Amino acid sequence: MKLRLGMIGGGQGAFIGGIHRIAAALDGLYELTAGAFSSDAEKSRATGVLLNLAPDRVYGSFEDLITQEKQRPEAERIQVVAIVTPNHLHFEPARLALENGFHVILDKPMTFSLAEARQLKEIASASGRKLCLTHTYTGYPMVKEARQLITNNIFGPIRKAYVEYPQGWLSAFEEGTDNKQAAWRTDPARSGIAGAMGDIGTHAFNLLEYVTGLQVEKLCADINTVVPGRRLDDDGAVLLRLSNGASGALVATQVAAGEENNIRIRAYGDKGGLEWQQVDANTLQVKWLDRPTEIHRTGTGYVSSFAQHNARTPAGHPEGYLEAFANIYRNFALTLQAEMAGQTAPPEALDYPGLDEGIRGMAFIENVIVSGHSDKKWTEFTV
Amino acid sequence: MKLRLGMIGGGQGAFIGGIHRIAAALDGLYELTAGAFSSDAEKSRATGVLLNLAPDRVYGSFEDLITQEKQRPEAERIQVVAIVTPNHLHFEPARLALENGFHVILDKPMTFSLAEARQLKEIASASGRKLCLTHTYTGYPMVKEARQLITNNIFGPIRKAYVEYPQGWLSAFEEGTDNKQAAWRTDPARSGIAGAMGDIGTHAFNLLEYVTGLQVEKLCADINTVVPGRRLDDDGAVLLRLSNGASGALVATQVAAGEENNIRIRAYGDKGGLEWQQVDANTLQVKWLDRPTEIHRTGTGYVSSFAQHNARTPAGHPEGYLEAFANIYRNFALTLQAEMAGQTAPPEALDYPGLDEGIRGMAFIENVIVSGHSDKKWTEFTV
Amino acid sequence: MKLRLGMIGGGQGAFIGGIHRIAAALDGLYELTAGAFSSDAEKSRATGVLLNLAPDRVYGSFEDLITQEKQRPEAERIQVVAIVTPNHLHFEPARLALENGFHVILDKPMTFSLAEARQLKEIASASGRKLCLTHTYTGYPMVKEARQLITNNIFGPIRKAYVEYPQGWLSAFEEGTDNKQAAWRTDPARSGIAGAMGDIGTHAFNLLEYVTGLQVEKLCADINTVVPGRRLDDDGAVLLRLSNGASGALVATQVAAGEENNIRIRAYGDKGGLEWQQVDANTLQVKWLDRPTEIHRTGTGYVSSFAQHNARTPAGHPEGYLEAFANIYRNFALTLQAEMAGQTAPPEALDYPGLDEGIRGMAFIENVIVSGHSDKKWTEFTV
Amino acid sequence: MKLRLGMIGGGQGAFIGGIHRIAAALDGLYELTAGAFSSDAEKSRATGVLLNLAPDRVYGSFEDLITQEKQRPEAERIQVVAIVTPNHLHFEPARLALENGFHVILDKPMTFSLAEARQLKEIASASGRKLCLTHTYTGYPMVKEARQLITNNIFGPIRKAYVEYPQGWLSAFEEGTDNKQAAWRTDPARSGIAGAMGDIGTHAFNLLEYVTGLQVEKLCADINTVVPGRRLDDDGAVLLRLSNGASGALVATQVAAGEENNIRIRAYGDKGGLEWQQVDANTLQVKWLDRPTEIHRTGTGYVSSFAQHNARTPAGHPEGYLEAFANIYRNFALTLQAEMAGQTAPPEALDYPGLDEGIRGMAFIENVIVSGHSDKKWTEFTV
Repeated sequence: MKLRLGMIGGGQGAFIGGIHRIAAALDGLYELTAGAFSSDAEKSRATGVLLNLAPDRVYGSFEDLITQEKQRPEAERIQVVAIVTPNHLHFEPARLALENGFHVILDKPMTFSLAEARQLKEIASASGRKLCLTHTYTGYPMVKEARQLITNNIFGPIRKAYVEYPQGWLSAFEEGTDNKQAAWRTDPARSGIAGAMGDIGTHAFNLLEYVTGLQVEKLCADINTVVPGRRLDDDGAVLLRLSNGASGALVATQVAAGEENNIRIRAYGDKGGLEWQQVDANTLQVKWLDRPTEIHRTGTGYVSSFAQHNARTPAGHPEGYLEAFANIYRNFALTLQAEMAGQTAPPEALDYPGLDEGIRGMAFIENVIVSGHSDKKWTEFTV
Repeated sequence: MKLRLGMIGGGQGAFIGGIHRIAAALDGLYELTAGAFSSDAEKSRATGVLLNLAPDRVYGSFEDLITQEKQRPEAERIQVVAIVTPNHLHFEPARLALENGFHVILDKPMTFSLAEARQLKEIASASGRKLCLTHTYTGYPMVKEARQLITNNIFGPIRKAYVEYPQGWLSAFEEGTDNKQAAWRTDPARSGIAGAMGDIGTHAFNLLEYVTGLQVEKLCADINTVVPGRRLDDDGAVLLRLSNGASGALVATQVAAGEENNIRIRAYGDKGGLEWQQVDANTLQVKWLDRPTEIHRTGTGYVSSFAQHNARTPAGHPEGYLEAFANIYRNFALTLQAEMAGQTAPPEALDYPGLDEGIRGMAFIENVIVSGHSDKKWTEFTV
Repeated sequence: MKLRLGMIGGGQGAFIGGIHRIAAALDGLYELTAGAFSSDAEKSRATGVLLNLAPDRVYGSFEDLITQEKQRPEAERIQVVAIVTPNHLHFEPARLALENGFHVILDKPMTFSLAEARQLKEIASASGRKLCLTHTYTGYPMVKEARQLITNNIFGPIRKAYVEYPQGWLSAFEEGTDNKQAAWRTDPARSGIAGAMGDIGTHAFNLLEYVTGLQVEKLCADINTVVPGRRLDDDGAVLLRLSNGASGALVATQVAAGEENNIRIRAYGDKGGLEWQQVDANTLQVKWLDRPTEIHRTGTGYVSSFAQHNARTPAGHPEGYLEAFANIYRNFALTLQAEMAGQTAPPEALDYPGLDEGIRGMAFIENVIVSGHSDKKWTEFTV
Repeated sequence: MKLRLGMIGGGQGAFIGGIHRIAAALDGLYELTAGAFSSDAEKSRATGVLLNLAPDRVYGSFEDLITQEKQRPEAERIQVVAIVTPNHLHFEPARLALENGFHVILDKPMTFSLAEARQLKEIASASGRKLCLTHTYTGYPMVKEARQLITNNIFGPIRKAYVEYPQGWLSAFEEGTDNKQAAWRTDPARSGIAGAMGDIGTHAFNLLEYVTGLQVEKLCADINTVVPGRRLDDDGAVLLRLSNGASGALVATQVAAGEENNIRIRAYGDKGGLEWQQVDANTLQVKWLDRPTEIHRTGTGYVSSFAQHNARTPAGHPEGYLEAFANIYRNFALTLQAEMAGQTAPPEALDYPGLDEGIRGMAFIENVIVSGHSDKKWTEFTV
């Protein structure tokens, strides 16, 4: 049976809501059944009509969605809630959903603050329900492959890692126009204490920790607000010290005019290293100290079970961002379905981002902003 | 309302059926409602279970699917039939579907022979129903853009065009293993008179005519069967004469060991030209005689309405093969929905491959095989 | 001791003369000692001044250069003549040089006609002197590597080969301007019976035969003159049948507006294949049926002795066109020096293009033009 | 007349000496006339033989070279000295050469210490002789183009710049083998206080300041010695504050196993930005906030006079590292020749690295090492 999904947020004009709906639909594992698409009941209703939802499953508030769905018979009510609102509206709906027995899919960063994130983990643990965080980039097959290669230690211990996420879309004062995406992402009341660091720095951070299997232990951040009038950071570069003593560097900026979304990671051991970047998402460059670089590709027979599990097409038919997103939805669904069947999902399906990644992401935001204000070189990464 | 879709073919072990289902699901415009997934009723039923279909909407033959669905109330019965069987099983289901009032989505090549294709066009015309052919590659946003640039004559009249589709997956005698895809594609009884030319040559041909807006008028083909024991061609190169007098070349092979699916097109006028290839699908290179090459990208604000209409994500978040496929499904749905509403769909939605492309594709197969056997250099392209 | 070099042609406004001079100078193996840079004695003299030549070593005709240099003491006179004139002025100076005991470096194509080429071979054989032909592209380290990999049969017998040389610089009627390069290359009296086929088609043909180690046995050519008013072909595509039964395709055009000089070759056996292109000249893609593509690179330790011999810098410091050109000069010098020392040069040094490649190139020109005019599909490749 | 060149260092087994000789020879502007190739007179002599030098122009020490050449008649003695020894042997020969009236070409980094660099500038000023520093990468045509575009302010003021130089060749303890290059570069007595930062960090630093036209004012460095037993740094990442308030990041490492020499720079203003990397040295990506990225290429007609001046071949015939190196030699020669003729060289020729770049490079080394040891985040960049 498809999992019945309710969505909070994602009305007209939103960006990420539509992405979540495609990701949920793509593999036929979810049925979008209910929604509170806007806190404006009329707007929520209009979105529901466009999405062909039954009118009585469209709500004017997330509270209504959760409480009223809970009243429905178990075989009919939604099972999973996807929360796709701005950051300041993550915690409350997630808390309510978990406490009322729903599983949760949450857009990143997990919450508005680290304190909320810690609290949410406790709530989730107490609830017995699961939470999935859509750190999209770790859904790419070749990112999975990258992690597997490093996990299998083919390069020797990682000694250096670079991650970068250059964007250009906030090069001008977009929040002064009618750009809704820019408006909330640069607003401390909705985005939190960080701008670029929260929006894309967390992605870079998550990608680094996921691929290397290491954790950031110290950091030294140069955090900037480049565009005059902007209220949050739009640029940063961060020196890193990782859990095995390796060093790293993280760069994230939203003022690299002309750049799209080419998040990229490189990591090196003493025998070789790897490079992956979104612009060529189905390629993983595997480099060696003394033999030719290899081009590992999505959809081939030689990649790991993790990479194969997260692909749908033969090599050369590119899988993209929506498929990476859908992999997270799919793995979460397979995990939930296995649990419902009293089984444990295979490791490939269990490999989706959740509470721990969410907490570390929020800790990154707080630590990187602290470091940005500090005169000391190194700031301990505290969680 | 979502369009109710029935599928013929696409049971376990099939490749393209799953792709069609994702393409149909991705934008939430179709509901897979019924299916005859195999001519083995038991297998069909098993697939239906996996796909969460109501048991009474799963049939053991395409005839049952069509005749029994037709018995259902109009508000409940399927509206569109997707046919994803091998080539020899295209015509009959398509005919029956059209004659019984269903719209048809058909995998390419359209039929087993050109004669069938011509006949199908007549049947479709008489039926008042529409037919969509899934020539995937023309669904890519940057292929749309390529066509628009040439349509707008920015390069001057096209003087030279190259198209190529190199694959390596049939480099060995795969039909001697349990590879089902190889088995039917190399079997004259199921594939038709051509192997590689039908399977991928038609894609290359369609891409060339779509992008340039020109038609092939003469051709000179070198058609080869490279792998010993194979019964159909697995390789070919074709010189072309186009409708405006331009020349071209088409290459398609399935024995380029190590190649994936990197279909590629280049076309040139006297002021400049363009290049697109699937491996970098979101990039269109626009070249100029006397100024820098431009990199046109999916998801940007400067591309044509056709390219924008066929994209879902901001620039830099790659759209892939499944999105290209879904664009064909989506445009067909938008066209049907407009018609149902008594309207005409916008040109961007009407831009999907159909009967005419199907007939030209079948004519390509027949002409290219004739030329391959001919001692004459040029063979007229007859339809 | 450096080899004393005399140059014929290469005065002001010429392109290839300067390239030859750099190629000769780069490794310090030649000393440009004399020249007849122009048939206009005054112009020749002016070039000699710019090049710091002794005035009495600068001549007003190639006849003077050869006959007067021959009068000089052996320890002083030039040893090698480089001929860098348009095609119609290749044979006579080469003949005279060889007959007077000089070795010859000749720009391609070897002569004005195949008959001249055959004759030149006989003259050279009789003279005991050597001739080197500057088919630049086979001088690249990664082209050497490509040939070695195929020679070592790592892919299995070659079954398919593609070569292409797209240029755009003759997209307009350049011969109507003061473009000297365009003028002679499109002039039947100076270029011969072919334009693009002679200028760049021969390069593509040579690259194909060199890399694959196979010979063209039949061809089917579509030869076009695209630009109105032009007197020779500026575009062509050719189907090929190779000596082991493999098929191939060759494309060369000078009207692909916006293309530079991206000559490219691909060849495939049943286990894998390779791809090289000038735009990324230090990379050889080595592709496999069932494992990752490998990126072989100039300057690494794992490439063949032929690739290593023809490189000067560590990996990642790109070697370019001038180094490829210089490799031909260098290998010819090493061969001559070994001979002078009564030794045989190592195979890596002996690997430079010469008379046989020149004759086959001229045969290509004649056969491809015959085929272009023929209504028959296949033309035997006769030499 | 060719400039008569004497070389100090560059005997058998050296790497950079051969590069300098090719760079000097390539354009025919220098004649290698004398040399002290080794402090071992026998070895120096042997190298002289290989290079076809007159035996009496080959010396056993740099002192002999300089003092004895000075005794020769002016029309015969060398005019320029190229110093290609390890860092600790830069200052003394340079000083002596300048003080004795020779111009100097010096490999980077300029000296062993910043104090030496400052002193050398004074000596040079007093001598009236010129000094050229071979910061190779600024010799590439597309690096010239990058600087010109920024100088012409087409992107608006630069707000962010990234430069990186990843190498892998010191991933193992190479200094424990017979690798001479590794031996001196990791030896504090010969290399100075820095390893990677001096060897390649200075290149990255120079490239950044050259392209952006800005100067580093503060830095925050993470400097590491990754390989056990190594005595100098082999890795570093540096946060930068530039003279216009912009921020930047510099990465240089010699332990990125599998990386070659892909030095790369990116810089952004508010309208767009640019990207250049050595692996694709003839391409400059010019990016725009709201229109397609442009691919600027070496050898085209649309690039600046600086880019055109530093190229020798038509677009598509790649120019490489040796040509970039030769550009520095050539520009220095053109500058000297103009001066000898009582003229001023054109700005394109005057654009070569010299004393000021050398001093800033040495200051970078000292400041970056200080910062690496500091607990403070920011260290003022002092010269």
